[in-house]
Amino acid sequence: MPIELLQKKDSASLEKALQEVSAALEGKMDQLLPEPENGEARVIEAMRYSTLSGGKRLRPFLMVASAGLFGVCREASLQTAAALEFIHTYSLVHDDLPAMDNDALRRGKPSCHIQYDEATAILAGDGLLTFAFQVLADPSTHPDPAVRCELIRCLAQAAGCRGMVGGQMIDLLAENKELSIDEVIRLQRLKTGELFAIGCEAGAILGKAPRQIRQALSGYAHDLGLAFQITDDLLDAEGSREKAGKEVRKDAKRGKSTFVSIMGIERARSQAQILAKQAINHLSVFDERASLLREMAEYVTTRKS
Amino acid sequence: MPIELLQKKDSASLEKALQEVSAALEGKMDQLLPEPENGEARVIEAMRYSTLSGGKRLRPFLMVASAGLFGVCREASLQTAAALEFIHTYSLVHDDLPAMDNDALRRGKPSCHIQYDEATAILAGDGLLTFAFQVLADPSTHPDPAVRCELIRCLAQAAGCRGMVGGQMIDLLAENKELSIDEVIRLQRLKTGELFAIGCEAGAILGKAPRQIRQALSGYAHDLGLAFQITDDLLDAEGSREKAGKEVRKDAKRGKSTFVSIMGIERARSQAQILAKQAINHLSVFDERASLLREMAEYVTTRKS
Repeated sequence: MPIELLQKKDSASLEKALQEVSAALEGKMDQLLPEPENGEARVIEAMRYSTLSGGKRLRPFLMVASAGLFGVCREASLQTAAALEFIHTYSLVHDDLPAMDNDALRRGKPSCHIQYDEATAILAGDGLLTFAFQVLADPSTHPDPAVRCELIRCLAQAAGCRGMVGGQMIDLLAENKELSIDEVIRLQRLKTGELFAIGCEAGAILGKAPRQIRQALSGYAHDLGLAFQITDDLLDAEGSREKAGKEVRKDAKRGKSTFVSIMGIERARSQAQILAKQAINHLSVFDERASLLREMAEYVTTRKS
Repeated sequence: MPIELLQKKDSASLEKALQEVSAALEGKMDQLLPEPENGEARVIEAMRYSTLSGGKRLRPFLMVASAGLFGVCREASLQTAAALEFIHTYSLVHDDLPAMDNDALRRGKPSCHIQYDEATAILAGDGLLTFAFQVLADPSTHPDPAVRCELIRCLAQAAGCRGMVGGQMIDLLAENKELSIDEVIRLQRLKTGELFAIGCEAGAILGKAPRQIRQALSGYAHDLGLAFQITDDLLDAEGSREKAGKEVRKDAKRGKSTFVSIMGIERARSQAQILAKQAINHLSVFDERASLLREMAEYVTTRKS
């Protein structure tokens, strides 16, 4: 993944940069993950099956693009992005379980518990979450242990019970319950926003950027995450199973409050666009090197899957 | 927990030291765990319910006792022990799930998924695992970030798919399958031994002890872990539900190979005693400050629950 690509300005370069980061990330994750061997091979196969399955890789892309702002080296950047994607993937594997969202389809393939079984899926998720921290703590991620510790601390906070795990708890409790718009925003901030934000912040942590710069990236990411989620709700309400690569209209079936159910399709669409603009405003401290992050803000609201 | 206690020689001091570490640990975990607030309160309640529930606290004790060999300060020692216990507890919560071992009773109380529900139990386990790494990465655990990273790397390795998670996978696949004694030893080494070993090694990491000393403690802990597991099998075969605080004769019901099913009760008992002696031999590099670790080797083979 040539870093130069992350600095080009023309809009066709976003798609290309996304593809290149995605391919480089796939290779990195393949290299990092253990081989399926011995009696425990099955859980490692399930970890590899769930991880090496394509997907948009938005979070790792945000990470690599943010790190690019600070001239972080390719290896540090990709390895941290891989750890982030292991955590995102574990959350999908556990969320898909019958006791949780009970989804049989993920990224156009059978979910982990369908391909294997529930016990293996629980363990594969546990294994991926644990492995993410093992990778981050390794000296090969960054020579400075203080940087590695800060990555781990922030990522654990974003993924934990006051972050992503907490968001999923709120989401499960919200079935057949009417939420206010503020409650939906907080739910999504925890469930999706925190991991988006740490994705962008991690680039700044690797680049030892000052707090103010970290906050600008975090602000960008939170608005982007919300715009992304509203678009997800729109795709769920309007999209087809084939295009989305997962079940659609799940939210309505479960009686869940979403941005669309509360605001209606038109207002939700315009809200997503306002958030995308707000996200871009946070990037005013950066020069044209942040152009891909700016394009990303448009991309998430116009994507079709 | 007065550190002096960890250096006393008389055998009555072991019980007392265990109780004191256990009480100090309970306080530390209570202080570290977040308060149940906001929409996500339920998952935090479940994390607290599962963690603050007594238990023998052997792993934290080993950690604190090992750290005592190197004059590590009480706070660093207890905080690392708390992280270790969060990981041990998460593994119990997930192992008890219906898709896994399906146990309704844990430490004499309803298992997490019985007290709450399956989804909450999955999330509580995820939250505890994530929180353990957040605690370890925090500067309050140890001032040197290189020490914190080494703790995280080793603990993640011990708990991951080539450690505890891998051991649980092998264990699940072993139902209704005859294992050789070597296979049972490897299963238990991964499922129980690795976390015992990192418990002891963590004390040496905190104390920046040389590699040779770490290896002696790891050797001790692996033999101790095996002796502990054989005794567990004996208690499962002979014990009562009331004394054990959990279901017994589960292994036989599931057609699992155990040390007892392969070796018989008498040989298993003598094997546990041989391992306890071997464990003590690894401690020859230490003076009388290791007396509690030596007593612990006897304790694990003679315990009644």
